[in-house]
Amino acid sequence: MTKRPTLEEQLGAPIAGNGLLDRRYFLRTGAAVAGAAAISTVASAQGIGPGSPPTMLKRGADFVGYGTPSHWRDNVQRILPQNVPPARQGVGSSRTPWHLLEGTITPGGLHYVRNHNGTPDIDPAQHQLMIHGLVKQPLMFTLETLLRYPMESHIHFMECAGNSGALNAAQPPQATVGDIHGLLSGSEWTGVKLSTLLDEAGVDPKGTWILAEGADGVGMSRSAPMWKAMDDAMIALYQNGEPIRPEQGFPMRLLLPGFQGNTNVKWLRRLKVTDGPTHTRDETSRYTQLTPDGKARQFMLQMEPKSFIIKPSFGMNMQGPGYYEISGVAWSGLGRVAKVEVSADGGKSWAEAALSGTALPKAITRFRLPWMWNGQPATLMSRTTDEKGVTQKTHAEWAAQYAPRQNFNLSAIQSWAIAADGKVSNVYV
Amino acid sequence: MTKRPTLEEQLGAPIAGNGLLDRRYFLRTGAAVAGAAAISTVASAQGIGPGSPPTMLKRGADFVGYGTPSHWRDNVQRILPQNVPPARQGVGSSRTPWHLLEGTITPGGLHYVRNHNGTPDIDPAQHQLMIHGLVKQPLMFTLETLLRYPMESHIHFMECAGNSGALNAAQPPQATVGDIHGLLSGSEWTGVKLSTLLDEAGVDPKGTWILAEGADGVGMSRSAPMWKAMDDAMIALYQNGEPIRPEQGFPMRLLLPGFQGNTNVKWLRRLKVTDGPTHTRDETSRYTQLTPDGKARQFMLQMEPKSFIIKPSFGMNMQGPGYYEISGVAWSGLGRVAKVEVSADGGKSWAEAALSGTALPKAITRFRLPWMWNGQPATLMSRTTDEKGVTQKTHAEWAAQYAPRQNFNLSAIQSWAIAADGKVSNVYV
Repeated sequence: MTKRPTLEEQLGAPIAGNGLLDRRYFLRTGAAVAGAAAISTVASAQGIGPGSPPTMLKRGADFVGYGTPSHWRDNVQRILPQNVPPARQGVGSSRTPWHLLEGTITPGGLHYVRNHNGTPDIDPAQHQLMIHGLVKQPLMFTLETLLRYPMESHIHFMECAGNSGALNAAQPPQATVGDIHGLLSGSEWTGVKLSTLLDEAGVDPKGTWILAEGADGVGMSRSAPMWKAMDDAMIALYQNGEPIRPEQGFPMRLLLPGFQGNTNVKWLRRLKVTDGPTHTRDETSRYTQLTPDGKARQFMLQMEPKSFIIKPSFGMNMQGPGYYEISGVAWSGLGRVAKVEVSADGGKSWAEAALSGTALPKAITRFRLPWMWNGQPATLMSRTTDEKGVTQKTHAEWAAQYAPRQNFNLSAIQSWAIAADGKVSNVYV
Repeated sequence: MTKRPTLEEQLGAPIAGNGLLDRRYFLRTGAAVAGAAAISTVASAQGIGPGSPPTMLKRGADFVGYGTPSHWRDNVQRILPQNVPPARQGVGSSRTPWHLLEGTITPGGLHYVRNHNGTPDIDPAQHQLMIHGLVKQPLMFTLETLLRYPMESHIHFMECAGNSGALNAAQPPQATVGDIHGLLSGSEWTGVKLSTLLDEAGVDPKGTWILAEGADGVGMSRSAPMWKAMDDAMIALYQNGEPIRPEQGFPMRLLLPGFQGNTNVKWLRRLKVTDGPTHTRDETSRYTQLTPDGKARQFMLQMEPKSFIIKPSFGMNMQGPGYYEISGVAWSGLGRVAKVEVSADGGKSWAEAALSGTALPKAITRFRLPWMWNGQPATLMSRTTDEKGVTQKTHAEWAAQYAPRQNFNLSAIQSWAIAADGKVSNVYV
């Protein structure tokens, strides 16, 4: 029998500092490196018989109408807010546990939830959507009516403006990627293009903005520009194929692909065409931030290119030198992810990662890069460039735009330090 | 106030028989047609106050770790097998209710399930995958080991070879699209490329096929050719982002994109490299069918281009003449959907539908076409052409390949008749 090549023999030359390998490495060589067990006897393991695992010796569970995840994985749950006083229950957010997930689609049960006064229980037969304001003819739509309209289906990310804001703390938070970046999720959305409905109502030329209001217990409302309403905005009725869930706006939400999460108003009941932004409480008390000259920047609506590394990350310590896949997610509110680069030496050199699957516009894209860790300290970083040519900023570049402690739309490059003992920690570089 | 144009004024000339409109209709004109209610008073409906819906006047539900669909939509369930004798429980299939869904992604809870002896409950820490047979070195992989390997993420359809077989009955079945076509679902899958593992084991040049065996109570096993194993085959560990569910093969399944559903062996425990197909019980007693000359055709592995219309379909009767969106799903095991054509006159004339979102390889693609129904009888059909140039066959063309009553891989064009009273029924054309 031929001796199997060692890791070092199999792996080619690094293409960037600290052992980053070419993204086409496995396509090119086919060799694998992660250490399966070689075995010499296989007879007892074939078919059903002596040595079969117990599941082969009995009938399994019957069919059910709506399936559930494995009980062996009941730790795969959203991260819930902690120490919430009774008066604030239902206010805040639960986060997608990216450190326990793979791929780019988030199951409905694990989509992040940002609520301002809990999830309302809306009778869909009673719910109506009104379009009014600077229109030729105000219109009222029931769900049944909307289901008659032409629809579209698209995969998009959703990200809260507060996502990753913890990275502005004085000390780098030592927490999982779900804790830090979990106000981000990816879904397929289906619904009616908003432009179709606005065209039917007839927008007055003075109507340059819209106001969207939800039917929750705070009437959460935000403004968005008419160009977006007429571009790819949608009244979303389905998510990942099924009717949109209550936590995501059942029976309908506004979808503004690539815009700040809460502009995608859930439980949508009203769209008013206006001649400018309305400056609602929900867009002045939050989602606005100070610049170094003391002015406030409002309506930072488009989420900028961003990424984070999931494997490895805090909580996943390295198991000795050798082969690892560096993997994470990237996205941009401006369009498709064009490329993701990874550094293993704190930004001194960069290697382009492979994008897994097809990079879709304003959607989460998975990136992957093979890495040969030599067991020495290393600092991992990722940065996204989107199809508009915009590249994710360093924290210093990002922070220079704002006054201190302004935490919204924090899209800066994030870094994981790998210690010689394999421990992974969050660091500011 | 300007009088709103009538439907007839808004809609342009049909581009195919019986009122099919150009797929770019809404892009081109912007006008909408589905009849929202014009309203004249809006004051009481703004913000929170008198006239607000009850959900705006109280706090909603608190955060939960794993969310669930709306209780208002608890009818959205898989279609379960009926009248199963106790000795056969867990044998058969549950179906995806496409008539209640939209888009292209199927939530894990509604993915179809075809089981041969129930869903086993496998302890992932005890499960192992063996690769043996015509290899240089047999290998054993734990789940923990596999998680160290390079991964890929792709969206693909899964379709049982028995899907749509009811369309071979003497009389056209009057049933929902879920009943007829529900052994089809779409997911994002993430896992390790099988070629990576086979390369590590070292395939003998005589190894031209593989045998895959599951750890369920029948040891379900099927053969697949080496070219597929070395192409896009995957050991899938995640589905729609989360760990693969027990009904879909937890902790791991073989994924052969575009191949017959049950070749994607669930609860995968063993892959044997062989010098030809193994002719297991599961591929000779089923999934094989007779041709007119009395021979048997085996290993009809690649699912051919196919589509069906969901809106309208059986159970969704028309509500009078006027505008409707014709919508459905299309896919091909050979690659991307290149185009879907729709006919409203039983196949005499065809119009090209719009494809919603991005058509991905071997994935479900949603098609849509605007239609002005004149209230007269009509026969709707859809047909897919994939990027290889293969077009979905008529039922007569499809059936001519086989002896009578051969029901596997039934990919023929299906037709819905619309009666003058709006009733939708399944017809053989």
